Amino acid sequence: MTERPLSYRDAGVDLDAARRHTEGIAAVVAGGVDGFAGGVEMPPMRDPLLLGATDGVGTKLLLASELGDLGGLGQDLVAMCVNDLICAGARPVMFLDYLAVGVLDPEMTRELVRSIADACDMAECALVGGETAELPGLYSPGHFDLAGFSVGVVERDEQLGPHRVKDGDAIIGVRSSGFHSNGYSLIRRLRDEGDLDLAPSLLLAPTRIYVKDVLGAREAGIPINAAAHITGGGLHENLPRALPAGYGAALDRGAWELGECGRAVIQSGRVTEEEAFATFNMGVGMCLITSPNAAGELCDAIDGASVIGAVRQGIEGLDGV
Amino acid sequence: MTERPLSYRDAGVDLDAARRHTEGIAAVVAGGVDGFAGGVEMPPMRDPLLLGATDGVGTKLLLASELGDLGGLGQDLVAMCVNDLICAGARPVMFLDYLAVGVLDPEMTRELVRSIADACDMAECALVGGETAELPGLYSPGHFDLAGFSVGVVERDEQLGPHRVKDGDAIIGVRSSGFHSNGYSLIRRLRDEGDLDLAPSLLLAPTRIYVKDVLGAREAGIPINAAAHITGGGLHENLPRALPAGYGAALDRGAWELGECGRAVIQSGRVTEEEAFATFNMGVGMCLITSPNAAGELCDAIDGASVIGAVRQGIEGLDGV
Repeated sequence: MTERPLSYRDAGVDLDAARRHTEGIAAVVAGGVDGFAGGVEMPPMRDPLLLGATDGVGTKLLLASELGDLGGLGQDLVAMCVNDLICAGARPVMFLDYLAVGVLDPEMTRELVRSIADACDMAECALVGGETAELPGLYSPGHFDLAGFSVGVVERDEQLGPHRVKDGDAIIGVRSSGFHSNGYSLIRRLRDEGDLDLAPSLLLAPTRIYVKDVLGAREAGIPINAAAHITGGGLHENLPRALPAGYGAALDRGAWELGECGRAVIQSGRVTEEEAFATFNMGVGMCLITSPNAAGELCDAIDGASVIGAVRQGIEGLDGV
Repeated sequence: MTERPLSYRDAGVDLDAARRHTEGIAAVVAGGVDGFAGGVEMPPMRDPLLLGATDGVGTKLLLASELGDLGGLGQDLVAMCVNDLICAGARPVMFLDYLAVGVLDPEMTRELVRSIADACDMAECALVGGETAELPGLYSPGHFDLAGFSVGVVERDEQLGPHRVKDGDAIIGVRSSGFHSNGYSLIRRLRDEGDLDLAPSLLLAPTRIYVKDVLGAREAGIPINAAAHITGGGLHENLPRALPAGYGAALDRGAWELGECGRAVIQSGRVTEEEAFATFNMGVGMCLITSPNAAGELCDAIDGASVIGAVRQGIEGLDGV
């Protein structure tokens, strides 16, 4: 052997730092970190379906890094997954995260995992594990990616979806907390070119988690027929996914507030209103569809909820935005 | 408006390519891509636990890209997750993938998703969805990352683990298919420096999926007490996780073949044998622990399985490697 032996650390992977990281997060991970897989008890149910959803936070994490504030990304990550599950009426029961970094920074990863754990509390689901991958050569130092995965359960006959929706149903828009986690490639470009003037707290406002809103309303006996999480592609792309074939949405553009983020994008003068509505949530982070009779009660039960339109047979896509 | 309006595509995100991609993968994703979350029926069980596992393929994907062969990465990804689940005795029922790219290449992503779907077939679990994220600014063109998530189910009283293991139990080593998906930062460095001479088919051999081996043996009535998936950190790091506190493993280093990959690492002369065993699986991809009486039957039932040692009370960690 003519050269000194190589260790795994020489190759850029610091297993000791990885272990310190594991110890740091053990306290916030339900089920501990000893086994090969974390878990939860299956709640007693009649005829359960298991649903899964996965998502990342997109390039919002690049803006968060640039602004030095990663504290909201955990909520973004959990929200992007669990808000999809509740569109099917499923109760999130389990969450896992995948964090990939160029160089492990135990303090940064602990902050991220802590924010994920806090968001799981908000969503009433268990953080049962995760993977922190140190990938020298794929991510530059300081760069990272974050993906999440959530599992929910729903009784087969209690699933929400297009099959429950009827002509004339009310469409309730529920206020978003800002841009949520979509459209950040465009947001960053507008900002870099000096055309978007928003405070960091608005730019990075964590994605609202609608789990308690939606499941709470159903538990209180308020019917919901379908729901749409308004993510990339905005209302145009996402609301039709909650509607049966041959039905569209007649929306009243004046019935809700765009919010500061939506207004700022339009005021930038760089994006047409049409493009803005096809990219951002424009103030509506979740749409709920219910019978006209239940609409008032549902709006009263959820903060920032208002009737924004109605389901109409024979309309193609959206009318009014 | 003094400049032409910006579109989302101007900012580097090609939604049309994303849609073509979605159509391309729809055929291989169980449950379709219409809803917000994919799902499976919960199998009828007495007292089920839901277990989750997440992992990536690490820097093996950089080597696969360099060698122009991504075809095995889907199996690596699925294996890294489902092999963890079966260590608890869980049956994988659901898989989702997260693929992050700098620039979407529909052909490449289709090849990856196809290989993931094929591997889910091998693991007898459903690919219910996934996320393909186009993240300009985080990944260079051609670069990508891949994470997987799997959910398994197990009856509470049929869980495998240290609680079942007894003094004198046999340790069965099951042959690996190569490096699996660990240690590639070191492998790439050895290779770059001309010290590791292995054919691409050996360097990139997909990770063996042990689901049918382990669940099949149990279904045939062959008892297994605990199992350890030998990943990063090798036998030293992973085998003790299957043992109760105060117990260790007495291994017979001559009882199994290192395989071509393990031998090549040691023959490189750049890595001590100790370091090699603390980094790579060295020929053993999965350890199964069973009573001495059942060891012969278990070895007969699984291809490449042999007794490599025994559980001993009072030993610290591993003895013999």
